Amino acid sequence: MDDIGAKARAAAAELAFASASARKAALEAAADAVAASEARIMAANAEDLAYGREKGLSPAMMDRLLLDGARIAAIVNGLRAVAAQKDPVGEVIAEWDMPSGLHIRRVRTPLGVIGVIYESRPNVTADAGALCLKSGNAVILRGGSESFHSSRAIHGCLVQGLRSAGLPEAAIQLVPTRDRAAVTQMLRAVGTIDVIVPRGGKGLVGLVQTEARVPVFAHLEGICHVYVDKAADPEKARRVVLNAKTRRTGICGAAECLLVHRDVAETLGQQIVDDLIAAGVEVRAEGLRGSSAANSDDFGREFLDMIIAARVVDDVDAAIAHIRHYGSSHTEAILTEDDATAERFFARLDSAILMRNASTQFADGGEFGMGAEIGIATGKMHARGPVGAEQLTSFKYLVEGQGTVRS
Amino acid sequence: MDDIGAKARAAAAELAFASASARKAALEAAADAVAASEARIMAANAEDLAYGREKGLSPAMMDRLLLDGARIAAIVNGLRAVAAQKDPVGEVIAEWDMPSGLHIRRVRTPLGVIGVIYESRPNVTADAGALCLKSGNAVILRGGSESFHSSRAIHGCLVQGLRSAGLPEAAIQLVPTRDRAAVTQMLRAVGTIDVIVPRGGKGLVGLVQTEARVPVFAHLEGICHVYVDKAADPEKARRVVLNAKTRRTGICGAAECLLVHRDVAETLGQQIVDDLIAAGVEVRAEGLRGSSAANSDDFGREFLDMIIAARVVDDVDAAIAHIRHYGSSHTEAILTEDDATAERFFARLDSAILMRNASTQFADGGEFGMGAEIGIATGKMHARGPVGAEQLTSFKYLVEGQGTVRS
Repeated sequence: MDDIGAKARAAAAELAFASASARKAALEAAADAVAASEARIMAANAEDLAYGREKGLSPAMMDRLLLDGARIAAIVNGLRAVAAQKDPVGEVIAEWDMPSGLHIRRVRTPLGVIGVIYESRPNVTADAGALCLKSGNAVILRGGSESFHSSRAIHGCLVQGLRSAGLPEAAIQLVPTRDRAAVTQMLRAVGTIDVIVPRGGKGLVGLVQTEARVPVFAHLEGICHVYVDKAADPEKARRVVLNAKTRRTGICGAAECLLVHRDVAETLGQQIVDDLIAAGVEVRAEGLRGSSAANSDDFGREFLDMIIAARVVDDVDAAIAHIRHYGSSHTEAILTEDDATAERFFARLDSAILMRNASTQFADGGEFGMGAEIGIATGKMHARGPVGAEQLTSFKYLVEGQGTVRS
Repeated sequence: MDDIGAKARAAAAELAFASASARKAALEAAADAVAASEARIMAANAEDLAYGREKGLSPAMMDRLLLDGARIAAIVNGLRAVAAQKDPVGEVIAEWDMPSGLHIRRVRTPLGVIGVIYESRPNVTADAGALCLKSGNAVILRGGSESFHSSRAIHGCLVQGLRSAGLPEAAIQLVPTRDRAAVTQMLRAVGTIDVIVPRGGKGLVGLVQTEARVPVFAHLEGICHVYVDKAADPEKARRVVLNAKTRRTGICGAAECLLVHRDVAETLGQQIVDDLIAAGVEVRAEGLRGSSAANSDDFGREFLDMIIAARVVDDVDAAIAHIRHYGSSHTEAILTEDDATAERFFARLDSAILMRNASTQFADGGEFGMGAEIGIATGKMHARGPVGAEQLTSFKYLVEGQGTVRS
């Protein structure tokens, strides 16, 4: 890891003033390389799938791991889309003059070296690598051990892109081991890694909390809540809850818990529960007739599956209290036609994303108009919500005078 | 510390939706209380001064510790100025519509609980407390042990302000002990303190690096460099270097190291060294005729005194290499009339503030037009350069639809 870290720092120093066009060319060449390497990537993926079957991975995890023609095409398009985005490095964010005669510019700069720790989704290798390069950062990638071969094959294409653009190959490195100790080493690499982006569930949350010495942009669990208020529009509420839970269950913006105002529990609330059950969702309910009774550990749980917890609450304040206690500061939605209630929900909760009369599945950089993203940050430092290239930068002040001194 | 932390969290939850006018009123009342308590604060300060004399503090440290009528008036004015500033909380930073029908707002929010660890400057108690309150945060203050009584007296006035505005008194807490263990406890208070602002020198740098588990906005040493290029305008260079070193030696923006291009070392360089010596500065020089020869440990040192290190370098790249090695990423200045050289200095260095033909003493929130500041952040995460109320905030996304679902 020391060697990887030293190479990353050297690459970051070069990248800090590499041209935007070189970084763009590297991403385009990487896209071409992925397209040309489909067969090799599929073969690597077959090895991972065999390993996954042997390890007895769940169908959901096997699906995340799987690459096919369409998914590889999506990786190619993703790389091209990032290449085409506006370059953030060197952008003048603000510019002004002072009475002293100083002219001040605030200019966007790379962060330095970013470490990305992620689960076994091979496409993240390309997405994270591309966004870090776009923002002028060197990156050390550490993917889930089940996607080891697929990630390595994709990483090889990224390196081809760097090479063809004359950029240091160490700008995008993949930790070449399945050893879990590498994760701890990354979390403690003060002075080498400037920030860690951890993407994952409960296991990684715990590890980050105890081990991290490096600053972290947490992209951890998405325990998203939907609260159906007594003033909800029934049609909107039924549509939104169904979409929030079932459109895709494996993404971090999927709803994991339904809260219903007591006054509409028997009517609209039960209707929504019935809708969910009819759609094949297992509803673990308290105060509503679900598929089964909720256990206490069903609240605050990220199912990432066709399962939802449901509970009746007294009012919006009880919903807020529940979310504060069980939520993960990712995304929460309220269904209500009452402006004051919506305002209270917006003011008193502090999740990265709060929604009114809209599906939590919109928690996505593309749906926010930000282009590709590395994930949804649930922390409050530096990055928050969808993290695209721009949020992977810092800034510096450039100040010009004419021999100006301070009196 | 656990009790202080729990009270701070509770206060932060209330502050997050306290009105701007209440926070403003609290700051105005605190200013009134400081003005009315001048005698009591001076008496407390006398205790600290006696303790400092007994401990054998340096004249520079005794001066930092000292409060008099003018300094107390400055504290009062500082509190009023922060009260009068635009309120950052709830500000809509950006707002846009998406084709999906979603309306998205990015809104400024408090960070939560801020811990400020600072040296024995009693005025920081007021400045830091005021800025944290202005930005809707609860704060735990831990000042230097030598200013214990002065800080306590000023803190009492802040609490009076909070009380009179009906805000929780625990919004601004002062650690009621001189025990150094409290600093370590703060640095490790994950889940209680959201961010630590450490302001101090080498001792605190080391402690933060080994002990911090909480995110940190480092306000550490200011090892500021001034590089006199071969294309420098002699008049501007002489004026700026003299100002950068001597205007005030005890602030973090004071120059601590002079670098001179080889081609002008004998002429302009020696002239500047002679100017400095004539002004009473001790110049520890290498390749120039200074007051004494520089030792290797004079480079990378924050003197905060009438002392400067000086060295001849081959060219701008050698100056950049020196600064990368010895600097603290605070503020560096170049004196040159050559645009390409200035551009290279600006592009290849990554200090928070880079200046051309201007004195490093301008590294100050007021001189940047930002109003009061808690210090100059030398890190790259979240806050950088002068940190005012705005940089003590985060943001959240508020998203509104009309029963909008994702396809």
